[in-house]
Amino acid sequence: MRTLDWEDGAVVTIDQCALPHQEITLRVRTVDELIDAIKRLAIRGAPALGIAGAFGVAIAARTHLSDADRPLGEAAARADAERLASARPTAVNLRWGVEQALASLGDGPDAVLATALRLMDEDDRMNHQATVNAADVIVGLCPDRPLRLLTHCNAGALATAGLRGTALGAVFELAERGLVEFVIVDETRPLLQGARLTAWELGRAGIPHRLSVDSAAASLMARGLVDCVVVGADRITANGDVANKIGTYGLAVSAAYHGIPMVVVAPESTVDEQLKDGALIEVEERDADEVRQVLGMPVAPEATEAFNPAFDVTPAELVTAVVTEARVMRSEKAAAGRTAR
Amino acid sequence: MRTLDWEDGAVVTIDQCALPHQEITLRVRTVDELIDAIKRLAIRGAPALGIAGAFGVAIAARTHLSDADRPLGEAAARADAERLASARPTAVNLRWGVEQALASLGDGPDAVLATALRLMDEDDRMNHQATVNAADVIVGLCPDRPLRLLTHCNAGALATAGLRGTALGAVFELAERGLVEFVIVDETRPLLQGARLTAWELGRAGIPHRLSVDSAAASLMARGLVDCVVVGADRITANGDVANKIGTYGLAVSAAYHGIPMVVVAPESTVDEQLKDGALIEVEERDADEVRQVLGMPVAPEATEAFNPAFDVTPAELVTAVVTEARVMRSEKAAAGRTAR
Repeated sequence: MRTLDWEDGAVVTIDQCALPHQEITLRVRTVDELIDAIKRLAIRGAPALGIAGAFGVAIAARTHLSDADRPLGEAAARADAERLASARPTAVNLRWGVEQALASLGDGPDAVLATALRLMDEDDRMNHQATVNAADVIVGLCPDRPLRLLTHCNAGALATAGLRGTALGAVFELAERGLVEFVIVDETRPLLQGARLTAWELGRAGIPHRLSVDSAAASLMARGLVDCVVVGADRITANGDVANKIGTYGLAVSAAYHGIPMVVVAPESTVDEQLKDGALIEVEERDADEVRQVLGMPVAPEATEAFNPAFDVTPAELVTAVVTEARVMRSEKAAAGRTAR
Repeated sequence: MRTLDWEDGAVVTIDQCALPHQEITLRVRTVDELIDAIKRLAIRGAPALGIAGAFGVAIAARTHLSDADRPLGEAAARADAERLASARPTAVNLRWGVEQALASLGDGPDAVLATALRLMDEDDRMNHQATVNAADVIVGLCPDRPLRLLTHCNAGALATAGLRGTALGAVFELAERGLVEFVIVDETRPLLQGARLTAWELGRAGIPHRLSVDSAAASLMARGLVDCVVVGADRITANGDVANKIGTYGLAVSAAYHGIPMVVVAPESTVDEQLKDGALIEVEERDADEVRQVLGMPVAPEATEAFNPAFDVTPAELVTAVVTEARVMRSEKAAAGRTAR
């Protein structure tokens, strides 16, 4: 089952806000509905956002290019596409998918849809290749043992348009090779993608896993329970800095302190060669209610102010390897630090 | 208002499980009720547990020493006291308070109660002195600036029998001196003592604060938003290792990485000179439901396994200073690391 697909003029996906307790299928038929689904994180995950962006342009093209006035229709489709591309600022894939699809706009709605469908197929193939590459890298870093892996947020099938995702796909690949002892799943406050989505995916796949509050990770590392940290990415800059779910940076600091490798798995479309380094990444600050509440239930005094950055940026020197379908980027500093320990 | 007191033969306290949305007064009249309140964390915080332990022995003495058979009554009181002392294994203060009160058992119920009341008064005075000492230490570490402090869990009045607590008391002391810009409050999963209790106490005191998910702390440090980390302790070993709420160790690792001082504030009764170092501390593993649920609401697939250590242990070399009412313990390694940066 694909977690994101195109069917009869609609983007069909599982509503990630309702998991794990309800499996609700969403049928998104307009750009506004798509923007809403993306903003409330019913559709999320950098690779999935790329494909959703491309499908959104296909919807816009079908809506507006049937107008009698073609230039006006194209302008309206481009305006929709721009609103869609800026629905969330940090993951580069959303704008990337929109732009890929827009390049076919001159050839009409069917061409745009064909491009989106091609991107979806490529996403699956590329992520699969990235997971095989990442599994090879992890085996190289942690040879001769059953692996205790720690992951944060959700970089599984739900985060892509494919069948097994990026970082979690690497876990699946390692499990297929019989190398996984268990996976520690960070619950990933504020929106609990680890507890709700990653635990659900691992449970369905029958891979042993243990849920943990985010703040316990360092202590589990100190107790020798973590061989490798594996996460996805929302944007990777030219120098190898990684924007990913809030909490990733703290994991990287702790992993480096304990001499544990930190591997990032993502498709090439997540690499933003336009940005020199992570200081230039815009980090989305989301509604304080996500922190004051847990899934809609208030947990703090009502008026409490909050910080709620959705992402953080991990400098390249704290990342052992960034693995894509095409390459393995290793930070020389990270390698040197590791050898020195 | 004291958050823990003795009134008409009962321990009177605010039910910390119901905060911040309800302020429910608990009247605890039996040792079994007290053990239940401690196990479900209606009463929590190392210093408060010490005083509650002493009051529990007073209840046991009143219950059993009125028996005609005095030796049998004493044995029953001691059995109750032992059950109470082992209700939670990590905080040393609970057993300490029980033992202090037990020393008066031979002098009858009134003597036991007098001892418990004396401990309560001393707790307040000693914690107050510790907060003044800690404020002095923090000002010395971070001179010439309005302070951005980060705290974890709750080490406020609610965690003691006093009026302003330990670590949070140091924050209050600094705020009274006009030195606090804002406090970052870690929400502190799984039981959200930061969101529920610390934010509530700071809000009542009018001290500016921002709630944050635990995993954001490292990123806030990297952004220059944290001048000092201030936390309490549940047990401090002879060499200065500190057991405290899960997540404290990760904060210490991140603080050291960013060259940010980490100050622990606790009464001398938290120091366990019997234990050489932190490796000997028993860390309480609590029910996995605390992680699978948030305040009773399921957030993960039902059968998900979980790690749920209630505490972690921070080695002395990651702690800049442990401050009590009587002394300031500084780790030479921590000081050297700080100077080297």
